[in-house]
Amino acid sequence: MSELTIWTYDWVPEGPRGLVRDLRLRWACEEAGLSYAVRTVPFDGRETNHLARQPFGQVPFLNDGELEMFESGAGLLHLAGKSDKLMPVDPVGEAQTRQWTIAALNSIEMVSVPWWFLKVSGAEKNQLTGWMSLRLDQLEKVLSEREWLVAGRFTVADLLMADVLRVPDVRSFGDRPATEAYVARATDRPAFKKARADQISHFEAADERRSRQKAG
Amino acid sequence: MSELTIWTYDWVPEGPRGLVRDLRLRWACEEAGLSYAVRTVPFDGRETNHLARQPFGQVPFLNDGELEMFESGAGLLHLAGKSDKLMPVDPVGEAQTRQWTIAALNSIEMVSVPWWFLKVSGAEKNQLTGWMSLRLDQLEKVLSEREWLVAGRFTVADLLMADVLRVPDVRSFGDRPATEAYVARATDRPAFKKARADQISHFEAADERRSRQKAG
Repeated sequence: MSELTIWTYDWVPEGPRGLVRDLRLRWACEEAGLSYAVRTVPFDGRETNHLARQPFGQVPFLNDGELEMFESGAGLLHLAGKSDKLMPVDPVGEAQTRQWTIAALNSIEMVSVPWWFLKVSGAEKNQLTGWMSLRLDQLEKVLSEREWLVAGRFTVADLLMADVLRVPDVRSFGDRPATEAYVARATDRPAFKKARADQISHFEAADERRSRQKAG
Repeated sequence: MSELTIWTYDWVPEGPRGLVRDLRLRWACEEAGLSYAVRTVPFDGRETNHLARQPFGQVPFLNDGELEMFESGAGLLHLAGKSDKLMPVDPVGEAQTRQWTIAALNSIEMVSVPWWFLKVSGAEKNQLTGWMSLRLDQLEKVLSEREWLVAGRFTVADLLMADVLRVPDVRSFGDRPATEAYVARATDRPAFKKARADQISHFEAADERRSRQKAG
């Protein structure tokens, strides 16, 4: 019996639905065939109401029995330790999976999220575009030579890299066919589709609850 | 016998000396008492000359016998698996160390490095200051309640968090005494001092070599 619980918000506005990072953990569990429950913390008051569990006021966090951890990257590496569907068990495969998982977080997302932030802030000139472009070009070179990042097969590193790259607008400039094909390949997986549909349903159901509460 | 090799540049200009990220791996080895060699790739031509080993053209990367990995965060987690001086061996301590290591990379450094980049680019108004400030405030709250991030003792998570926070200017606005004391505590450790001095000597020795080559 699994005791995995993925924590997310009880509700979010329509914009981020399908993008909230509990999707990463849902996707990993779906790939690995790990059963899990989803529980929630209130979106309202998120800045302060769960700081004891997530000191930056964000989601997701993950329970595995007594263990509790935040940071989607840490949750992914934890889940990867449970299934060779997410990470090869040989030392080289494991080291490379960890390496590319952290590359997604610290070499790509470290620029893509601030780049996106400046973009939606309406900066006249996005000063991170050069850096963003360089990283995407470097990654395009890697992806033009292999189908998946590690060991010729899908791993949790691909799950995370594809999730970082699928954020709207991040790939909206330049022509990088290998990267496009890679993101399409990853997000065409049934486990991704189920995780995404489940997240969207979760937040839609919250809409209905909110409406009933207002009506009642 | 250890087969650890830390790869860095053969030379860098004075500005980044003491900050190049091979220091993270040196520091970890010094804390754990792991012996290691330091080898180099040329700084000149770094954009392309070692892409097969580090696809973003950066350093460090780490060899452990046959294993080779890039991303300083991945190297740190690998080294942490070798010594309980870097990571507790119980499952809770291990999960929390991984969680805070990734928090340093993806919650703090994800804003601090782009913030610093905008700052040195001479942006009139740094649009990441609000976000940077929020993260530092959230971290100050955590650090005002504990000496070290995990298990009441120094771990590799502190090594990385302190290294992220000690970058010049990152803590230059706002008054956060717990964070100041934390960074001072971490960087007062003999292992940090040795790692930093060794890195600076390494690059200074390269200056002398360069001078001789020019004179010859």
